[in-house]
This record gives sequence, C-alpha cells and structure tokens, in this order.
Amino acid sequence: MGIYDIYKNSAAPAVRDGAQVPVNDPFMQVSAMAAVTEHLGFGVTSAVTYEQPYTLARKYATLDHLTKGRVGFNVVTSYLPSAAENQGLPRQIEHDTRYEIAEEFLDVCYKLWEGSWEEDAVVQNRETGVYADPTKVHPIRHRGEHFTVAGAGLTAPSPQRTPLIFQAGASSRGQAFAGKHAEAVFIGGLRPDLTRFVTDKIRDRAQAEGRSRDDVKIYAMLSVVVADTDEQAQEKYRDYLQYVDLEASQAIIGGWSGVDLSQFDEDEALNYIKTDSIQSFLTPFTLQSKDKQWTREEIAKHCALGGMGAVLVGSAQTVADQLETWVDEGGLDGINLAYHVSPGSFEDFVEYVVPELQKRGRYRTEYEGTTLRESLYGEGQPRVKDTHPAAKYRGAFVGEPSVADTPSRELVG
Amino acid sequence: MGIYDIYKNSAAPAVRDGAQVPVNDPFMQVSAMAAVTEHLGFGVTSAVTYEQPYTLARKYATLDHLTKGRVGFNVVTSYLPSAAENQGLPRQIEHDTRYEIAEEFLDVCYKLWEGSWEEDAVVQNRETGVYADPTKVHPIRHRGEHFTVAGAGLTAPSPQRTPLIFQAGASSRGQAFAGKHAEAVFIGGLRPDLTRFVTDKIRDRAQAEGRSRDDVKIYAMLSVVVADTDEQAQEKYRDYLQYVDLEASQAIIGGWSGVDLSQFDEDEALNYIKTDSIQSFLTPFTLQSKDKQWTREEIAKHCALGGMGAVLVGSAQTVADQLETWVDEGGLDGINLAYHVSPGSFEDFVEYVVPELQKRGRYRTEYEGTTLRESLYGEGQPRVKDTHPAAKYRGAFVGEPSVADTPSRELVG
Repeated sequence: MGIYDIYKNSAAPAVRDGAQVPVNDPFMQVSAMAAVTEHLGFGVTSAVTYEQPYTLARKYATLDHLTKGRVGFNVVTSYLPSAAENQGLPRQIEHDTRYEIAEEFLDVCYKLWEGSWEEDAVVQNRETGVYADPTKVHPIRHRGEHFTVAGAGLTAPSPQRTPLIFQAGASSRGQAFAGKHAEAVFIGGLRPDLTRFVTDKIRDRAQAEGRSRDDVKIYAMLSVVVADTDEQAQEKYRDYLQYVDLEASQAIIGGWSGVDLSQFDEDEALNYIKTDSIQSFLTPFTLQSKDKQWTREEIAKHCALGGMGAVLVGSAQTVADQLETWVDEGGLDGINLAYHVSPGSFEDFVEYVVPELQKRGRYRTEYEGTTLRESLYGEGQPRVKDTHPAAKYRGAFVGEPSVADTPSRELVG
Repeated sequence: MGIYDIYKNSAAPAVRDGAQVPVNDPFMQVSAMAAVTEHLGFGVTSAVTYEQPYTLARKYATLDHLTKGRVGFNVVTSYLPSAAENQGLPRQIEHDTRYEIAEEFLDVCYKLWEGSWEEDAVVQNRETGVYADPTKVHPIRHRGEHFTVAGAGLTAPSPQRTPLIFQAGASSRGQAFAGKHAEAVFIGGLRPDLTRFVTDKIRDRAQAEGRSRDDVKIYAMLSVVVADTDEQAQEKYRDYLQYVDLEASQAIIGGWSGVDLSQFDEDEALNYIKTDSIQSFLTPFTLQSKDKQWTREEIAKHCALGGMGAVLVGSAQTVADQLETWVDEGGLDGINLAYHVSPGSFEDFVEYVVPELQKRGRYRTEYEGTTLRESLYGEGQPRVKDTHPAAKYRGAFVGEPSVADTPSRELVG
C-alpha cells in the first residue's frame, strides 16, 4: 500500500523503473481468472495492519465462494513506512506489535469463518421460504485489545471456510507466527543444504504448537531458465542479464528489507557487516558468506533475476536434478516459482520441466480434489486440520447466544 | 457491512428470510463479468465511513483498468448501526458528520485519481527502460481533519481516472452532496408528478454548485411486470404476490430506514405520523398521502415487490407508455430497473420493453463510446466534466513537488 522509497530515500527509482509500482488491487483479478480455470489456486496477499477483520473476512469468503474453494490468504503485517504514511499513521507500527495485532486479527477472522454460522445453518427451503436457521447463526461478540466485532458473519460458510493460510515472515517472530498459523510458507534461500536449517526451524515451531511437522508446506523461491540444452539455457540466461536494472533491483531490495543500499561503498562485502537489519535481510546471502563476498552490486544483480532465491539454469534434466536436490536436501514441499518473463518463464517450465519431473514421479499428474487445501493435503480435506488454530472455533458457538435470542442492541427511542 | 436488525430489534428475521444476508463483497464479481461483456457498466457501492481513501481509491482504479473504464462508485455513508458495531465503533457516527467525512474522503480520492499522476507521466519506453517520469508523479501530501495521506497514488491513470460517481442520499444533506458530487443519482418515488419536486431540487443543487442541471443524471427505481397482454401481465403480478414475505420486507425497511415497523399498530396510517424518521423514510409514501392510507402491512407489501419505487404492470405498450410518462413528467434521465425474479425480470424487460422503446426512439440502439461515463455524457467524454469537483485536481500538482525532488522522509539511521 505504498511505493518502495527506501533506496536513496526517494520514490523516484521505483517509479522510473516500474519496480513494484503501479500496484493494482490483487483481489480484483481473481474472479475473471477463476472463471476460466478449474484447479488453479489463488493466493491473495493482504496486510492485516490497516484493515478491519470483519471487512477482510468477507473479502476472502466471497472469493472462496466464487472460486469454489480455491483461495489462499497470504498474511503480511506490512513492512513499508510509506504504506503507514498513506493510511494516516505518523510512522509504521513497531514490528512485534504488528504481529500481536495480526494474531488478534486472525482470531476474529477464524471466529467469523469457522464459528459464526453452524454447519447446517443454511437451509434454503423453497417450501417454507427459510434461508437460514437463526438459532444456528451466532454473533461472535469479540471484544479484544485491538478489535471489537459484535455481530455474526455476513457470509454463509464457503467451501474451505478459512482460506488456505500462507505466510512469508522471515524474522524469528514471523517464524513463530508461521509455525502456528501457516499452512504454506514461502522462504528464500540460495543453497539447499543451508535452507534446511530454516525449514527445520519452521517445522520445530509447528510441532511446538501441537501441529504435525508436515502440516506446514514449505516452498522456496526459485527461478528457472531452461532450454533444449545446458548451453542454450546459459545463453538465454546471458540474454536476460542484459536487461537487469541495478537501480530497480536496489529499489526493490530497499522496500523488502528497509535497508538503503546506497549508503554502502560499492566494493564493501555486505555479508560481513554485523548489524541487525543487514543480518535479517541478507539471511540468504550471509548463510553462504564463506562462498562469496556479496557487494551491493552483486546482491542487486542476483536479486534482479533471482530475488531471494536461487536461479537454476540448464536443460530439463539439469533443472530437474537440481530441483530434486533442493526439495530433498532443503526439506521442502515444493517451490515458489519466480519468473523472469511473463508468461514465458511459466510456459518454459510447463513445456520442459513439468514433463521431466512427472517422468520421475516428482510432479502431480492430476488433482486430488477441487479446493486449494485439497491440493496440499489431499482429497476430502477442504477444511483446516483439527490442529490448526482456526479449528478451535469450529462449532465453538453451538449453545451460545444466536441471532434468534440476542436483541440487536438496547432499545433506543 | 452488517445484518439488517432494526425490525423487532433482531437479526433473526433477516437471517431466516435471506433479506440482504448473506452479502458478499460486490467488488469481487466485477472482473469475471467484465471479461464477458463489452459495454455493461458496473456500479459498486462502498461506504466511505469505515475505510481509508488510499485503499479505496486503489480498488476503483484497479477495476477501471480491468474494465477499460466501465466502473461507477456508488458513494454511501453507511446507514446501519450493526455495521458500525462490526467495525469496532460503539455506535454509528452521526449522520451529518458522516457526510463531512465523505466530503474529505472524496477529496483525497480525487487528488489521487486526477492529480497525482500527470497525463503524460507514464512513458513505458522499452529502449530506455523507463516506466514513468518521476518528475510527473506527485505525492498528494494531504493533511485534513479526518485523513492524512502522504504519498503518490499507487495506480497509473485509468481510462476514466475518477469512476462515475453515483449517489442515492435522500436526506437534505444527501441531496446537497449529490448536487455537488453525483453524476448519477438513484431516487425512489411512487408518482411521476410528485417525483418532479425531487428531481427539480437535485438539479437546483447542482446548479448552485456551478454545474449544469443536466450534469446530474437521475434514475428512479421502477420495476416492471410485462407480458403479451395487460391481462397476462396482471396475472403474472398476482403470481409474484403470493411469494411476498411481509417479515422479510419489514426487515429490509428497518435496515433502509432505521425504523422498526413492529412498534406500530397494524391498522395505523403511517403516512400521517409526523416524526422525523417516519417522514424521511416514508417520503415516497407521504408524498401521496392523499391517495391512500399506508399501514405497515401495505407498505411492506408494496416494498416487497417495488421497493421505494412504482411497479409497472402491463403489455409492452402499456409499460412503455408509463415509462415515457415517468421520464417526461418526473424529469428523469432513465430508470433504475429493480427486479422480482433474476434473471427473469431483466429478460422480460429486454424481450418486451426495449424493442418497444427503441421503436419510439426512447432507448439507445448503440453505445456512444467505450467507457461508462461516455454512455451517460456521450462519446469522447470519459473523464469528469470541468465543473465536477474532481476536475479541480486535474493538473493541480504540476509544478508542485514530485517524487523526484521529495525525500521520502527524514533520513533515519
């Protein structure tokens, strides 16, 4: 909800290079895409820092209805000072407070999605004209530190009820949040062996929350440059490199990390600098500090094509070999495929890599169910698992006051 | 953003009868509908009482891009206490304060839509890699009583820039707001001659704001029951009547008006009761108090099929005659076609009434332009008129600080 303006203390590089600007509202495209696809899932990112949970819960429930259960919610707490300034705040809310707000925010959403309308509340009886049984629809009467929501949910239960919860937090607080709430986690990483430390830590967190280590599906950001032969792929990669814009890349890095790379000397090895902010945003780079000195130009060059992930270059066989290594050594459930050219990168992946992975039995050949959650957990599991924090609101209001026996408010004249 | 729960001080009647509940998020359906239509416009209602203008401006700009300029924004200030209670407010914000907030809210949106990005800011030069000229993108630096927005808009200019502004306020303050901002106004009314007083008043307001009397297009809510003959139409009408649910209708009226009809005796003539709230919500009914005594049952019965508008019943000729009278005597630009059966009511209107009106030269046979605004104002006018309050921000930031010469914020460590 703001322009990336950390690099050079200016929004100009991002605007000039079209680096994450313009950014249209991602919710708006989903119904058109859903209308022409059958199994594709749609993960939509929302910051839970500047919205009301009642409003946001309705957005996802609506999309879950429209897509017949193919919606995911990528929970972010917003990392841009410019976003805060566009929402009327003098400055960004402090990092850990944002996560406290997010915890309560999700709690309210879970109550609305899972608990407010009982499973058999919707009757739709043409004879009697009854749409729903008011004794089975409950006001959630939430009164917390950050949010107050009095009423019942405005939407009928959707196929997944709670959308599939995605998360991408890299900080320690973020990992704790992911261990508790996330059903799918995005991570960055440049080497599979070192990525394993991260995936183990996230699964430890999930286990500590009473969930199974496999309940959290982890996807590393990777991009692929593939062609008929390794040589042709390398050539394609060199061709892409000529379009790299270091200013744009540093503008992006500034937004992601909050670190203005322009403050450093050109030949400074940044992975040896020990400050908190550098440590955190350079995690993928510092993890392999023994291999390489990362100057700001080298980081910018890498990020321009690979973001915070590795770039795999080669023939279908080469790329498939590397992907197997990544998934097995890295402890991953899959990858978050980044792109260099759209739709070219995706077309290449479908044409070259998918058939090779399918031949090796490492890629699905059909879909297990119809919802996004079933694509991850298997057929017949469109709803959150019992160990997920949303599950505790399943049926939680049965026997509690319903709209049938709750006066809307004190009678006023 | 809340369940209608004024009637009987309970949400139960609305939930039981499916009266405006569930209510999904209307924004989410638009892109799918836009993908399969060419000229249809999409007016989306938003309450400007519980959102941040920066977020809302992005929603409409996104849809205006996706629909190629076919989006309208029906500005409401929210009328439901239950909505306030779901947004963390102890009670609804007072009526006139809501309009003050709405004035500033629209002002911020206009700045973002019309002024932040200059007309030729977007360059999209493949050779130089420049997306937009940062000297032509301006932070709006808005600091008002209700909102603070520091940055530049997050979206590039869309075909209409400002979506077509709709409004439906019936109160005196609402009419003042409409006279200033609305390009299209929805009204209710049961008789064309008496409706004329309302349309004249709205056009007076527009004129007082320096606009032309014709700049505000006014549409009265009407519904139509049409068949081959007058008799068959009357029979269809009688068939519809058997499905009328008086409880559902009174739940709807409670939400719209804030008046709980259950407090009145069954045979009380409500159009003679002189209280402020009754006067305002019964406007269409009190206007014709000499013709008829309106008890709560009669009001509920009428609203169930006609809402706050008339129901025209007859053959294509009969309905077309009545529509001509309505438009000419009522001083209307068109009608807001309500429905009894979906899509049946619309199919009937297209099959019977449209050809008859076209034969009489009273209905378009082609579209003037491609945007929604052109459908109202004619080809070549996709943007707001010069006399519209949004127009004053057209080019208003030229020569003012741009993102190129504005440090994002005080340099922090």
